[in-house]
Amino acid sequence: MNKRIAVLPGDGIGPEVTAVAVQVLKKIGEVFDHQFTFEEGLVGAIAIDETGNPFPDETLQLCQSADAILFGAIGHPKYDNDPTAPVRPEQGLLAMRKALGLYANIRPVNTFKALADASPLKREIVEGVDFVVFRELTGGSYFGKKGRSDDRLSAYDTCTYTHDEIYRITKLAFEAAAKRRKKVTLVDKANVMETSRLWREVVQKYAAEHPEIELELMFVDNAAMALIQNPRRFDVILTENMFGDILTDEASVITGSLGMLPSASVGNQVALYEPIHGSYPQAAGQNIANPMAAVLSAATLLETSFNLMAEGKIIRHAVEEALNFGYVTKDINPDKFMSTTEVGQKICDFI
Amino acid sequence: MNKRIAVLPGDGIGPEVTAVAVQVLKKIGEVFDHQFTFEEGLVGAIAIDETGNPFPDETLQLCQSADAILFGAIGHPKYDNDPTAPVRPEQGLLAMRKALGLYANIRPVNTFKALADASPLKREIVEGVDFVVFRELTGGSYFGKKGRSDDRLSAYDTCTYTHDEIYRITKLAFEAAAKRRKKVTLVDKANVMETSRLWREVVQKYAAEHPEIELELMFVDNAAMALIQNPRRFDVILTENMFGDILTDEASVITGSLGMLPSASVGNQVALYEPIHGSYPQAAGQNIANPMAAVLSAATLLETSFNLMAEGKIIRHAVEEALNFGYVTKDINPDKFMSTTEVGQKICDFI
Ligand SMILES: [Mg+2]
Ligand SMILES: [Mg+2]
Repeated sequence: MNKRIAVLPGDGIGPEVTAVAVQVLKKIGEVFDHQFTFEEGLVGAIAIDETGNPFPDETLQLCQSADAILFGAIGHPKYDNDPTAPVRPEQGLLAMRKALGLYANIRPVNTFKALADASPLKREIVEGVDFVVFRELTGGSYFGKKGRSDDRLSAYDTCTYTHDEIYRITKLAFEAAAKRRKKVTLVDKANVMETSRLWREVVQKYAAEHPEIELELMFVDNAAMALIQNPRRFDVILTENMFGDILTDEASVITGSLGMLPSASVGNQVALYEPIHGSYPQAAGQNIANPMAAVLSAATLLETSFNLMAEGKIIRHAVEEALNFGYVTKDINPDKFMSTTEVGQKICDFI
Repeated sequence: MNKRIAVLPGDGIGPEVTAVAVQVLKKIGEVFDHQFTFEEGLVGAIAIDETGNPFPDETLQLCQSADAILFGAIGHPKYDNDPTAPVRPEQGLLAMRKALGLYANIRPVNTFKALADASPLKREIVEGVDFVVFRELTGGSYFGKKGRSDDRLSAYDTCTYTHDEIYRITKLAFEAAAKRRKKVTLVDKANVMETSRLWREVVQKYAAEHPEIELELMFVDNAAMALIQNPRRFDVILTENMFGDILTDEASVITGSLGMLPSASVGNQVALYEPIHGSYPQAAGQNIANPMAAVLSAATLLETSFNLMAEGKIIRHAVEEALNFGYVTKDINPDKFMSTTEVGQKICDFI
């Protein structure tokens, strides 16, 4: 198989974990005789530093001509704490999602047996957790019109949604539920938000036409509680952009495996795969970041974009072996740990 | 002392738990020889049923002429799942906050020793948790302009904030921190929201003038994680309306004591006290709801609005005694429990 993979390492620990994922993909290429071509592009703070633009046209073209995108992370603290910065790394992420039509972010959350005790929650609550969040990615407050009054003393953000934006991700979520435990939980705030009421209308109409899937309705504040009290109750969670941002991050820590969780962003054309942990700048450059989420993102890439199911399975198995042998980074075992590159090498050795 | 207390039982379990709180206040009145007058008003779904208005003028006048307000809960499922309902119970809550200028919701979160094992989190994570959330209550998306396109296929909500709205609650939060562990965590999404950037500007300026208080900046998705991973790190959390809605509910379950948590809503004139658990319609009318949060709200009312510190302390002590003796409702101990009214009587007996 011949495939072009765009590699966007980005900021913080992005380059380190992406390098491991590429190493693993190269090993898979050797073993299975696939021709994977890797081309790197700039995105995020590093792209601002080098070009002034967090998502340069060159990177967009690279992505559009690729068969899949492997992405690291975006963000740098020098921008976070400077409210006056004219350009921000996160704008690169938002621009990328918009330009590539990546309207759905898909995040599976599941407990790894070897890590059940790493969870801040009690073992009996996290055992067997297995759900997936479908987060709308190109609408809502993050993309809506925003600004200041002339005196700069008042500010606004606008959350907008259209029927079609809601419909297309609803379809994906219901299709996923059909292959799983056949339950979709729509998370919104329909008691106070007009956009949420539109979400309910669209999703309830879709559900009425698909009676084989159970639809549950839940307010976002209740969902924030339920994720802690009884995360096993969830199968597929469907929600808008900002609620998804908050809930997926909350969900990522209940299993104690934040450094383990991959994600996929899908849309009309090419799909993008990334670890969910973000740029984690405190750890950047120290060779201590956990590369497993990036590696599992690469596995998801092979399975989802290239339909290479056996190859994906072998990567997942290699990661589990590394976990079982204790070949892990500091975040998983602060008492006995390896470096990012060492863990990467161990995973490759298991392939 | 002569005081008029407006009592708004509201919906769901509101009337049952409020009745216990009133009973406790009456007992305090007898023991300490205070003249508390209680006058009931309609609010929420029951007010819609009886008057068509979730916050009738009569209730507003009652509140404005009272020295403090004891509130139950608002909300009924028949409205939640009907996106076309023209009037909603929650509008009563929002109208009440606006009309009374209740701009800050204050929610202490702390672990009760007798309940540490009731938490879904591991004991070592929740032990010693003691923070308070200052949630802005009258701005943001819930109150902003909202609507639909003519074809009803697109919807919007507007989040707005002004310098003054942010400043007044910032002042309260910093004053509270000064009496506590001297740390304020501002939770926002300043990397993508313009309103969040205004929050940072105002709060950072205030913090620069109050160097004795440490200011920490945190994104809302990170805060949703940190509340689970390390809740002891927080002292005072300061945040906008919607983020506060989500995070306070998340925070309420980490201690395993959702039925135990009171809250205060303060503003320019009269203050309002309520349990945070909401109307919980599944339990309504069954005499099974936990009245302790309503009772602790009454204690906070005495302390905060009437400066009756000894009386408040005696109520808190009575609640702890009831907990220690196992005089609790089903939510606290499903194996051995009492009814709402029985627990209320036990608390009164301890006074
Ligand atoms: Mg996030
Ligand atoms: Mg809430």
